[in-house]
Amino acid sequence: MSTTPTTPAAPGSTALDPAIAARLKRTDDGLLPAVAQQYDTGEVLMLGWMDDEALHRTLTTGRCTYWSRSRREYWVKGDTSGHVQAVKSVALDCDGDTLLVKVDQTGAACHTGDRTCFDADVLPLS
Amino acid sequence: MSTTPTTPAAPGSTALDPAIAARLKRTDDGLLPAVAQQYDTGEVLMLGWMDDEALHRTLTTGRCTYWSRSRREYWVKGDTSGHVQAVKSVALDCDGDTLLVKVDQTGAACHTGDRTCFDADVLPLS
Repeated sequence: MSTTPTTPAAPGSTALDPAIAARLKRTDDGLLPAVAQQYDTGEVLMLGWMDDEALHRTLTTGRCTYWSRSRREYWVKGDTSGHVQAVKSVALDCDGDTLLVKVDQTGAACHTGDRTCFDADVLPLS
Repeated sequence: MSTTPTTPAAPGSTALDPAIAARLKRTDDGLLPAVAQQYDTGEVLMLGWMDDEALHRTLTTGRCTYWSRSRREYWVKGDTSGHVQAVKSVALDCDGDTLLVKVDQTGAACHTGDRTCFDADVLPLS
């Protein structure tokens, strides 16, 4: 496939195990939300999006790969920042529409420099 | 508003604090993914979806309320199962497009009876 796609890979078009691909329930855009969690502390670090190809790369390279909805390209977390995510485990949820990726996060997960993307904006309860 | 909506609430149409509503970046369907995490153990329990109204109810009632994409209605987690989620905190991520809800989960979070929705289907790494 092209190294510079502008849309997520069509289901079934990638090297992802067909037995896994068949269980995925994707958004209309061909994506699944992927929750990244620090494997030992349990911190929820961020939420990214994966198409079949990003999931395949995540399962086979040991590094978290997402589909960027804004840049419309794959991104290997940490390739530019050095803040890599080493993959410890990947689970598909009961509905087949969400991924939980347990990782070992180097440094900050958030582009703001915060450890997680959820550190800065706690909403008031009432 | 109607008690039996069939679509998520339009942005700005609910009682959600306008200062919060202005920061939300919603999907084309008007929704944000909401990660539910057990507040003390750190377990990621499930991922649901919230529109402005579901977020407002979650912030003000103490009980997690989601928008069901399949049933096209609000659901208060636990109303039928008894497996309620008491809200401990709600955070918006750095991009304004994902919510992290820390909860105290009664019983199983998953409709299958598993504690979390990610217990049953761990994908093989290679």
